[in-house]
Amino acid sequence: MPNKRKNKIIVQKYGGSSVADLGKIKKVAQRVVSYAKEGNKVVVVISAMGDTTDELVSRAKEINPNPSDREMDMLMSTGEQQSCSLLAMAIHQLDREAISFTGAQVGIITDTYHTQAKILKIETKRIKQELAKGNIVIVAGFQGLTKTSEITTLGRGGSDLSAVALAVSLKADLCEIYTDVEGVYTADPRVVPEAKKLKDITFDEMLELASLGAQVMHTRAIEVAKKFNIPIHVRGSFTEKEGTIIMQKSSYIEKPVVRGITLTSNEAKLTLCNVPDKPGIAAHLFNELARKNINVDMIVQNVSHKRTTDISFTVPKKNLTKALRISKSISKSVEAGEVISNETIAKVSVVGVGMKSHSGVAAKCFSVLAKNKINIDMISTSEISISCVVKKAAGKKALKVLHKGFKLDRIKS
Amino acid sequence: MPNKRKNKIIVQKYGGSSVADLGKIKKVAQRVVSYAKEGNKVVVVISAMGDTTDELVSRAKEINPNPSDREMDMLMSTGEQQSCSLLAMAIHQLDREAISFTGAQVGIITDTYHTQAKILKIETKRIKQELAKGNIVIVAGFQGLTKTSEITTLGRGGSDLSAVALAVSLKADLCEIYTDVEGVYTADPRVVPEAKKLKDITFDEMLELASLGAQVMHTRAIEVAKKFNIPIHVRGSFTEKEGTIIMQKSSYIEKPVVRGITLTSNEAKLTLCNVPDKPGIAAHLFNELARKNINVDMIVQNVSHKRTTDISFTVPKKNLTKALRISKSISKSVEAGEVISNETIAKVSVVGVGMKSHSGVAAKCFSVLAKNKINIDMISTSEISISCVVKKAAGKKALKVLHKGFKLDRIKS
Repeated sequence: MPNKRKNKIIVQKYGGSSVADLGKIKKVAQRVVSYAKEGNKVVVVISAMGDTTDELVSRAKEINPNPSDREMDMLMSTGEQQSCSLLAMAIHQLDREAISFTGAQVGIITDTYHTQAKILKIETKRIKQELAKGNIVIVAGFQGLTKTSEITTLGRGGSDLSAVALAVSLKADLCEIYTDVEGVYTADPRVVPEAKKLKDITFDEMLELASLGAQVMHTRAIEVAKKFNIPIHVRGSFTEKEGTIIMQKSSYIEKPVVRGITLTSNEAKLTLCNVPDKPGIAAHLFNELARKNINVDMIVQNVSHKRTTDISFTVPKKNLTKALRISKSISKSVEAGEVISNETIAKVSVVGVGMKSHSGVAAKCFSVLAKNKINIDMISTSEISISCVVKKAAGKKALKVLHKGFKLDRIKS
Repeated sequence: MPNKRKNKIIVQKYGGSSVADLGKIKKVAQRVVSYAKEGNKVVVVISAMGDTTDELVSRAKEINPNPSDREMDMLMSTGEQQSCSLLAMAIHQLDREAISFTGAQVGIITDTYHTQAKILKIETKRIKQELAKGNIVIVAGFQGLTKTSEITTLGRGGSDLSAVALAVSLKADLCEIYTDVEGVYTADPRVVPEAKKLKDITFDEMLELASLGAQVMHTRAIEVAKKFNIPIHVRGSFTEKEGTIIMQKSSYIEKPVVRGITLTSNEAKLTLCNVPDKPGIAAHLFNELARKNINVDMIVQNVSHKRTTDISFTVPKKNLTKALRISKSISKSVEAGEVISNETIAKVSVVGVGMKSHSGVAAKCFSVLAKNKINIDMISTSEISISCVVKKAAGKKALKVLHKGFKLDRIKS
């Protein structure tokens, strides 16, 4: 739909796999130029080429196993600077004006937390000048500058964040995130072949899907896009097909519709048995876990009918040993019973705005699983999702039957 | 002589071959730390690792055979930024504080001529702050920033220039240039095995030697060092031996001493025969050559005894075709005779301050060559050098006999 994008300000972000080699950079140049030729003002944010960042990290570690964050930022930021200038040259080769910039040059001002800096503001003056001159503007993603001229990087998902923040600052009409998947799917297509690509999805649904394991886009960038209501088009770098628009209100908003199902199996479950029914014990337990930087996901505690209750919760598998030690120590101090752990679990989640007000969704979810003889071990719900812990062995089956049960294989994509 | 360098401000420059791999970077770190431990304030300027710059150039050319100078500077400047941060990490690993900077960050302000920018000024505030904190300061060589925040590079010899300019701005006590030769020699040791390393040499002599083909240091940097009278110690990266000090007045200054002999064979000779003896013809010829950016080196025109004279001059071999075309056209227009060219020539030069006032040097030079049956084709002299054009086949022999004739094999190094 080329007409949709005439005379617009468009920010495009291409990830490392989209610029993995010189041939791919040339292809990206062609796409960028095709947008510019339609009269759009195009700002391109790109990541470092393919494995550049990994290579730089391994060089650094060879020199110093614990390199300083500041110097890592000096080193890492060169990757994006290189890909940027190469893309500018590729666009020049197609007879179009383009100019590349570091984060510092376009005034992407961040705080001082090296390797995981947060963007404070973007001074858009230079970019606007160059766009007005007819230039395609290319900005190194993932990087910025502190107020005292220190080079910073933005951490995981940093280039997505650069793109969204630029789109916000420039009041862009559209922000396109090019990636190696073609959009957001109703489930992981590698597990559920009949999964469908969604035409659009709300920011909240996408946040839920992203944090539940979909690898499309980083949550930080989605949060910023949501805050400033910048629609994002997630799409494949090497296809002309439309991807998925992430936006404030999806076209489906009034229907109690399930938009996607996710499956994760990187968590473990702990249960404190026979906890005395006194106030403050749960607070004590979860405060202690938080203090040790253990991210607790689901928490379930039933109303107790007896003098004692059971508390179950899930943590990332890598934190299980630490969580177990803390839980046992607390169990002992409050005179609770044994602590049971289970690593062979999977969590299947049904995501969609509006499901909370439609109790039918939860009921349907449970009955689909029951009909397929899948036992539910834990349940937790949010505004826009229902998550069930099941046996790990049943995870993929649960994903498939729920996908089919909610008729996601029949939506139009 | 470690005592000589206590509590000094020292600028050190390490070239690309000195930081060609991670192991060499670690060695450089050790040397830098040894200086800092002696109480010196050390500022290190380094080049990109080994072939990095060449690799970046070849990537650029693959994308675009005629990349823009501005984007080349964006790309090229990343090489030094990488080696800088890696050196900082290597120094940290030796438990010493260090901080790396781009040219932009320390305020190396240049003009706007991308790929061959000239340094306008250096704002030393940040460097002085970091030195005062006890940091070893590492600065990316070869690069700067324009007043409008464009990244520039300084062209050939750029890192030498960064080092000398920093030494000037910081009023450094010493500027050390580490390279893959151990100093300045009386002749090229590959041709004259008995060549000796000079303990010191004047800026003027070094300029003459550098422009005559010695590869030690770039003339631009020597010119700046001379202008601000900053002594430079040229020495080997991987040896503790003293190199050569380049300075205003050498310890030999009052003696009519020949300091070195150079040999080049990258020039060709042209002769315009039977040029009418009228004013303005030579001016016309050399103006025309200059307009076409042809660098004329030696020019010889004898006083004419007849109505006509011959004008001979040398040009770089790569410009011979162009120079020949221009010369023939001018010869025709002024009704001169034929134009003869000769590519099989070599130029041998005897260099040393004070030789002009000692006519004995020239006489000795000619007689040494004559005694060895080497015919002299052209002669030209400057304040501090005598150059003779000889047949190419006789070049190496001329270099050797002059080196021996002026007893350079017997000086103490």
